[in-house]
Amino acid sequence: MKKLSFFLVFYLAFVSVLFSQTGNVKVYPTNWWVGMKWNKIQIMVHGDKIADHFPMIKMSAQGVKLATGVYLTQINRVENPNYVFLDITIDPNAKPCRFSFPFLKDIHLEYELKARRKGNGKDYSQGITSKDFIYLIMPDRFSNGDPTNDRIAGMRDQSLGRDSVFYRHGGDLKGIQNHLDYLQSLGVTTLWLNPVIVNDMPNRTEHGYAFTDHYTIDPRIGGEKGYKDLITAAHAKNMKIIQDAVYNHVGLYHFTVQDMPMKDWLHQWPSYTNTNYKDQVLFDPYASNIDKIKMTDGWFTSQMPDLNQSNPYVASFLIQHVLWTVQEFGIDGWRIDTYAYNDLTFMNRCNKALMDEYPHITMFGETWVHGVPNQSYFVQNNYDIPFKSNLQASTDFQTLWGITDAMTKDFGWTDGVNNLYTTLAQDFVYKDPTREVIFLDNHDMARFFSVVGEDVVKYKSALTWLLTCRGIPEIYYGDELGLTGFTSPNDGHVRQDFPGGWPSDSLNKFTAAGRNAQEEDLWSYIARLARFRKTSAALTTGKMMQYVPFDDGVYVYFRYSSNQTVMVVMNTAKEQKNISPSAFAERTTGFSKMKNIITGEVTALKDFAVAAKAADVWELMH
Amino acid sequence: MKKLSFFLVFYLAFVSVLFSQTGNVKVYPTNWWVGMKWNKIQIMVHGDKIADHFPMIKMSAQGVKLATGVYLTQINRVENPNYVFLDITIDPNAKPCRFSFPFLKDIHLEYELKARRKGNGKDYSQGITSKDFIYLIMPDRFSNGDPTNDRIAGMRDQSLGRDSVFYRHGGDLKGIQNHLDYLQSLGVTTLWLNPVIVNDMPNRTEHGYAFTDHYTIDPRIGGEKGYKDLITAAHAKNMKIIQDAVYNHVGLYHFTVQDMPMKDWLHQWPSYTNTNYKDQVLFDPYASNIDKIKMTDGWFTSQMPDLNQSNPYVASFLIQHVLWTVQEFGIDGWRIDTYAYNDLTFMNRCNKALMDEYPHITMFGETWVHGVPNQSYFVQNNYDIPFKSNLQASTDFQTLWGITDAMTKDFGWTDGVNNLYTTLAQDFVYKDPTREVIFLDNHDMARFFSVVGEDVVKYKSALTWLLTCRGIPEIYYGDELGLTGFTSPNDGHVRQDFPGGWPSDSLNKFTAAGRNAQEEDLWSYIARLARFRKTSAALTTGKMMQYVPFDDGVYVYFRYSSNQTVMVVMNTAKEQKNISPSAFAERTTGFSKMKNIITGEVTALKDFAVAAKAADVWELMH
Repeated sequence: MKKLSFFLVFYLAFVSVLFSQTGNVKVYPTNWWVGMKWNKIQIMVHGDKIADHFPMIKMSAQGVKLATGVYLTQINRVENPNYVFLDITIDPNAKPCRFSFPFLKDIHLEYELKARRKGNGKDYSQGITSKDFIYLIMPDRFSNGDPTNDRIAGMRDQSLGRDSVFYRHGGDLKGIQNHLDYLQSLGVTTLWLNPVIVNDMPNRTEHGYAFTDHYTIDPRIGGEKGYKDLITAAHAKNMKIIQDAVYNHVGLYHFTVQDMPMKDWLHQWPSYTNTNYKDQVLFDPYASNIDKIKMTDGWFTSQMPDLNQSNPYVASFLIQHVLWTVQEFGIDGWRIDTYAYNDLTFMNRCNKALMDEYPHITMFGETWVHGVPNQSYFVQNNYDIPFKSNLQASTDFQTLWGITDAMTKDFGWTDGVNNLYTTLAQDFVYKDPTREVIFLDNHDMARFFSVVGEDVVKYKSALTWLLTCRGIPEIYYGDELGLTGFTSPNDGHVRQDFPGGWPSDSLNKFTAAGRNAQEEDLWSYIARLARFRKTSAALTTGKMMQYVPFDDGVYVYFRYSSNQTVMVVMNTAKEQKNISPSAFAERTTGFSKMKNIITGEVTALKDFAVAAKAADVWELMH
Repeated sequence: MKKLSFFLVFYLAFVSVLFSQTGNVKVYPTNWWVGMKWNKIQIMVHGDKIADHFPMIKMSAQGVKLATGVYLTQINRVENPNYVFLDITIDPNAKPCRFSFPFLKDIHLEYELKARRKGNGKDYSQGITSKDFIYLIMPDRFSNGDPTNDRIAGMRDQSLGRDSVFYRHGGDLKGIQNHLDYLQSLGVTTLWLNPVIVNDMPNRTEHGYAFTDHYTIDPRIGGEKGYKDLITAAHAKNMKIIQDAVYNHVGLYHFTVQDMPMKDWLHQWPSYTNTNYKDQVLFDPYASNIDKIKMTDGWFTSQMPDLNQSNPYVASFLIQHVLWTVQEFGIDGWRIDTYAYNDLTFMNRCNKALMDEYPHITMFGETWVHGVPNQSYFVQNNYDIPFKSNLQASTDFQTLWGITDAMTKDFGWTDGVNNLYTTLAQDFVYKDPTREVIFLDNHDMARFFSVVGEDVVKYKSALTWLLTCRGIPEIYYGDELGLTGFTSPNDGHVRQDFPGGWPSDSLNKFTAAGRNAQEEDLWSYIARLARFRKTSAALTTGKMMQYVPFDDGVYVYFRYSSNQTVMVVMNTAKEQKNISPSAFAERTTGFSKMKNIITGEVTALKDFAVAAKAADVWELMH
């Protein structure tokens, strides 16, 4: 009975919105370009009973010519007359133009085909590689560069108040742009922002993962202009931009949820059904269908309806949006939210469309799972199994579990730093583990400085690992100051403001003068490592060699190229340990000196000590 | 200095034994057969200065004819004149015969080629499949069927005393043979014995893993006759025999160690070097060579010299021995000790030789490692990587860690029964996980009844899992009684005598009358499950479906074939749980009744309860 009534309510709600929508006619994508490989587009037209304005027209095989080389090949009417979907073919000979649909009744509709931006793979869509260093920013919480956009009239969330982690704080893209020099001085090459797309939700809008209109940049962080200005400024400094994609779901207030094109736009359930959050069911040879369906089609939260990516209209809408975004804004790479929850066949199509259009672009998926088999299933791997993901890399949660154990658990046969060691040994299952994005924390996880009990020595050890291991390192804004916070009781505690990002802040930690001794120590530590890394062939494109951990938790590894060898010693034991370079003769033979990367000190390459819980890094010299 | 002196001592020891050996001339293999695919054999001839008896003879291209279709193609002299290695080709037209080597000086040497036994793949070399149920026995500790062989004059270990777990206890093959009916009544189909090959070592000889002469069955357990009698009796009861192979090492008193054919018969080190026991280095893309060499070439213990399997003489010696053993004794399958420590290229050759000669035979390797990627590397898997193992299966330590966590740890996102669930989900990496040998304990591990704190309910849960999961179940002798014991302080505590195996035992637990109530309860539980399993298509060759564990630790899985469906519910929670069969509609639809496999009770298929920590198993019925 309960199930039935829920279904009825939902169905009636659907029927009622079906015919109630009014307002201007909108088209998505809002424009397209000539000369794209993706040259068969599907335009969603949304407006009050828009279908009534489309006459039944007889279509030739070629379709209806709209401009030179531009043809309408199909008008798709769907359940909700507030939508039509137009299939358009753009021939290679098409020129930039605006065209209209002359056959429409009572309305006029125009569409623009622009010229593409230059520099594909050079000035934008450059891809992120192990030469980069990523800095993750939650735009609302980093810096308020424009106080005039903090609250936008008409939007649902009118909260504004830095005294609550649940409210909006006013940070914006201009605030980020203002601190690009700061970031570059820290050694950062690449910005990853939590989603910039508008979240016109009633509350908790700071994270950005509940899109309500894909084609609008949130005005509270600066809108389209703010985003373009930031990207232009970043590119001018040779920095790169990663956008955060959410394909799996939208916010409950997304226009296609409030006024659904068709019932199966979303994954519908007789009664509310959450995802089971179990990645295992996707590769488990023994999984039940119901568990698989719950995983993929269950809703991520009740506020985030699950898009039906096997619906071709949904698929086109999503793929076109991501292509449009690269072209419109000049994105260099993508982080893909909740990767495992998507329809993986759809994701392969979507990834392929991006890679076909932008051969240098990179994308990495969030894989918050446990186990290398689990994580590697979602990326390009060495499994000879029916499903082959074309995703280039993931957020490497497995090495995060490893470094966490290394820093917080006692050394044991499988525990402590041996967990990190083993995880890396399992890299043989990846096609290219150097593309994995390695990290210590993010907007959903405890600050790593808190994880290690605010132990500066341990924290530096972990940072040393982060900036010297294989993969692409990422830090979360404020990690460089040792910001603290756990996710319990809620994520807000790891989403605090960057001190100095607001004009009223008493201290400005963007400057050395504003940082206390410990903050400056951590800041300098990261900056030195990151700057060394930037020009180090060994650390960015070199090979790796790791030795079996020994002596109660000493872990020694090397990064090396033809011209450079870097040695890292992580001592996770409770006491100082002595290290004999001769034990690592394969990598130390031929060198006579070692240069400490942090202090710059050069000493003879002979037995040396590493303090308890510390990690040191040296370049070996002749 | 220390290293140098050790090397000198070793070298001098080598030189001194090189010329000191006296005694009869021996040949290995002790015979061969006509009609084998392995028809180019290498006979090791061992005797005092035997090389002096071999003249330099001129060899034609075909070699020296020794009998019809039998040719000597090469005489290999090696560093130690006490050995020669003769390469012999046996053509398909060769007949069973004895031949001699007429050109020898001063000695006469004969060699026999026998007719092969009939029934390859039917009466022997049958292979072990998921239809089987393996019972592991340590022959010295199961039953003393022949008190006359307990102590053998001239052997190094003259200990005999059941009051010490370190001494010999007198158990033997005859004792096992006497209890085949007992084992069959328990539902056992297959015996795996700890090694039966002679261990003429000074002490701790009960386990059998330190061979001193591959071609001699330990006389203290009954020698060749005892082994043949046991196998004949087992085969007569349609039971199978698994032999325990040790390729990696031998005992320090092996004749080829005491009188080495050549220095590189063994892996030699400047000073004693243990293996690092780190399987990871074998697949780690970042491993150092020194760590790999230590793993493979380091000694397993100081009492077990590491064979150099890349030495072709060693390789031939080992491969021929295992082929000889199948042919001579009629073995059905092999368990391979310390699999990861072998030269894996050699192992592939050796496995292939066995599979070529005996297409039905199976072999599974001991893989005492942590992680599905680790374990699966050593067996046939779905990795597209340079090294491809041809080993069919392994002792499945990964599900052991899983069931251990399920029984001993609280339910958590990755803990408790979720560990078991996830481990099985990772089966996608195996070529055929149904060949994995699953188990709760063995001669090297704590008795599982002790692991679960002698909790009968938990123990039965684990046994239920063992006999219903995919794979080939194995129990260790006495598990059916709930024998207890931990490996600390030494393995002996898990190697206690089967009560009733010795004439002087006051209680005979081979009979129901000798078992107490708890023992009989456990015994009957296993027997009922095993006997049901024996004729159950669902459990032996059926598919598996597992559901995501839920409700604080309820784990439900099904085994099913076209004609049978078996449902298992493991409740690892601390309280009774209610189960709704309708939640598993994919497997329960169409059934109306359920039959409890243990009690035989038939009830309607509707909501039911499972007690805390219990596992129940039902066959679904229409």
